[in-house]
Amino acid sequence: MTALAQRLIERKRDGGRIEAGEWRALTSAYAAGHIPDYQMAAFLMAAYIRGLDRAETNALTDAMLASGAMLNLDHLDTGRVDKHSTGGVGDKISLVLAPLVSSLGVAVPMMSGRGLGHTGGTLDKLESIPGFRTTLTLAEATEQIDRIGCAMLGQSAEIAPADRKMYALRDSTSTVESVPLIAASIMSKKLAEGLTGLVLDVKRGSGAFLPDLERGLELAQMMINLGEDRGCGVVALITAMDRPLGRACGNALEVEEAIHTLRGEGPPDVLGVTYALGAEMLVLGGVASSRDAARRAMEVAISSGKAARKFEEIIEAQGGNPGVVDDPAVLPQARACELFLAPRSGVIGRVEPRAVGRGVTALGGGRTRMEDIVDPSVGFVITAKPGDVVEQGEPLATVFARDRVGIETGLATLRHAIAITDEAELPLPLISHRVTAAGVTPFEHD
Amino acid sequence: MTALAQRLIERKRDGGRIEAGEWRALTSAYAAGHIPDYQMAAFLMAAYIRGLDRAETNALTDAMLASGAMLNLDHLDTGRVDKHSTGGVGDKISLVLAPLVSSLGVAVPMMSGRGLGHTGGTLDKLESIPGFRTTLTLAEATEQIDRIGCAMLGQSAEIAPADRKMYALRDSTSTVESVPLIAASIMSKKLAEGLTGLVLDVKRGSGAFLPDLERGLELAQMMINLGEDRGCGVVALITAMDRPLGRACGNALEVEEAIHTLRGEGPPDVLGVTYALGAEMLVLGGVASSRDAARRAMEVAISSGKAARKFEEIIEAQGGNPGVVDDPAVLPQARACELFLAPRSGVIGRVEPRAVGRGVTALGGGRTRMEDIVDPSVGFVITAKPGDVVEQGEPLATVFARDRVGIETGLATLRHAIAITDEAELPLPLISHRVTAAGVTPFEHD
Repeated sequence: MTALAQRLIERKRDGGRIEAGEWRALTSAYAAGHIPDYQMAAFLMAAYIRGLDRAETNALTDAMLASGAMLNLDHLDTGRVDKHSTGGVGDKISLVLAPLVSSLGVAVPMMSGRGLGHTGGTLDKLESIPGFRTTLTLAEATEQIDRIGCAMLGQSAEIAPADRKMYALRDSTSTVESVPLIAASIMSKKLAEGLTGLVLDVKRGSGAFLPDLERGLELAQMMINLGEDRGCGVVALITAMDRPLGRACGNALEVEEAIHTLRGEGPPDVLGVTYALGAEMLVLGGVASSRDAARRAMEVAISSGKAARKFEEIIEAQGGNPGVVDDPAVLPQARACELFLAPRSGVIGRVEPRAVGRGVTALGGGRTRMEDIVDPSVGFVITAKPGDVVEQGEPLATVFARDRVGIETGLATLRHAIAITDEAELPLPLISHRVTAAGVTPFEHD
Repeated sequence: MTALAQRLIERKRDGGRIEAGEWRALTSAYAAGHIPDYQMAAFLMAAYIRGLDRAETNALTDAMLASGAMLNLDHLDTGRVDKHSTGGVGDKISLVLAPLVSSLGVAVPMMSGRGLGHTGGTLDKLESIPGFRTTLTLAEATEQIDRIGCAMLGQSAEIAPADRKMYALRDSTSTVESVPLIAASIMSKKLAEGLTGLVLDVKRGSGAFLPDLERGLELAQMMINLGEDRGCGVVALITAMDRPLGRACGNALEVEEAIHTLRGEGPPDVLGVTYALGAEMLVLGGVASSRDAARRAMEVAISSGKAARKFEEIIEAQGGNPGVVDDPAVLPQARACELFLAPRSGVIGRVEPRAVGRGVTALGGGRTRMEDIVDPSVGFVITAKPGDVVEQGEPLATVFARDRVGIETGLATLRHAIAITDEAELPLPLISHRVTAAGVTPFEHD
């Protein structure tokens, strides 16, 4: 197997193509431990620098998908649609969308990840709900989706194990930010959910994984191709991550904000992104004839309490305390909190998401390594948004921490993250582009 | 340390430069086991594809040199000169040069390697002499050089351990054939011999490590720069490896041919390369005022028996049977041998060195992995040279093997390796270029 690896390393190093059968052999031999990490690391660096063409990206996706099990939901007569975000700070949209969309008759098999670095993760947020269990087996998830239309779970070891192993290696060898490798990694996991449709939230701006719009669009188009080639309709929206999304950043705080949003009381940007992504999911899922109709259905689901009740159902099914939807105070509460006041008058020039995300980690609410344990209670609620005119001494944010030291850490984070200037920089549009198999169009806001 | 590694991987991946202090940190951390193989593999692939500039190659050489011990020969009042060949088939020149040049008053601290793949290694050849020990410590080597002017030893673990570890990794990750990585690897080991001069035999042609002349010249110039920057004069000759050098290919057979050459009875191409490289060594070593004068001195050393006696001295000092010089029959003898006859009349079009080298390995006389044990007795003596006019049934070569199966393997090798055609292809000139710090000039044959 190492001779095969060596031949493929050499070919990719020299800019050549790897055939579908070779991707399968490479991937399964690596997953089985027959190819050592150092050979795969050399291969991945060559692939990072030389790139993969569309057929190669397809073949790698299939190979990783085939390395594990899949959710089989073919027996359902409804559409199965999930959403994937490339990750950001304050991004609690999944917590809102899963109950909202499934309350309207589209099955949502949602597999999510944990937070790492400056970005949060849906699993960590869900687990701040007392009792909530995200480690469902595929059989449990299937049964729950059959019964209530939604399950929110972690990527089990059964799903795309080759991708799991390869991703860990990429993370420690600086070969993560390759558009084809990212696209294949994400899509191999998403396609394992047995979807009929997928909506992508591709972030751009300083807090995004790929800050640059061009590379975000490239990633979106590659993932759309990968999905469409396998009969899964894919739509991507390009959304802003030059500032945190919403106000809350930190696990329990974001659950609380998601619950407010499900009740129609969320911040406008959270509602805006929820409605835009939800409309795509409902159209792809076959229960709405247009995005406008989908939007109206979602407004009713929220105002009627149907979406909030679906969240209670999901929480109850996964062992959590459903009372959290009526009374978010059952969530873990930080022991200390303190307002952050505007140090001067002016205009909010920037709220830097990476600084805020790292600040959550510094408070104990995030991870620098996968083994780290997170404190769900800590974080920030930042009410100031870029462009706001503020007076010196006006409250801009609240720090939630474990103790006095945490409060000081949090205040220092905010002093650094929130820039007050004399003139406002223009923030990125909340949603700038819509990408489908047909191409890229500017996104039209309501 | 892995954070340092990750930063450097990222920078090299994106085409950036690594500073001298960073090369030192990377190299010593890797040698100490603080950086895992998979990170170094990713780094080396990035370095292979993106390249290293002159300052980086210098810094890497110094870092690897500094990772281990050095031969300290500063107390000698003679020059210390070694020869390095980029490797080939039938290349027994080191066995001739070490005694020949040291017999004329230049110290030769010669560290060599083992054969791998299609190329042979000087250590394996020496060890076919009964009793010959190549595993000298640096102290033993120093003492022997003080006493008799020459030691022929393997690269001990004390020398450039970082290079040793990195080379093994490059070998299994297809990152060997990078000109700056090769240059730094060779020169870090050669400079550890405490040389005042070094002569390089850079092979070109189908059997060479870098077949292409341009890349060979690039490597030669890079190694010359590395040596000259450290006060070690370096001259390179570009020599032909589109056919085996001399007639004998196989460990004991090559020792026998080297002994014949030391007695003035060697094949013309072996004598030609020996005199050309030897002349450079004697001029660099300060004992000859010109290459012509050096040539005359070597002719006398051979005809007088002085060079052969020096070889006896070296063999005796290293525990071998010096009787081999008078009677090569004390070398291990193959149990079976058979002539290979010209299957048709015509002209010898090619004698393919890679096929011959692999044939030696197939007979048990080479290695495909470093752990393999070699049989010193087997190999080929090929008297046919490209351009020779031959008659059907005329003997072209002899196969030396362990048994009948080996004979058949050897004959099959030769049928494949020796092409008889109607018109001769023009072989490469035996020595085509001479390269010094001043530039490249065509080599002038006598």
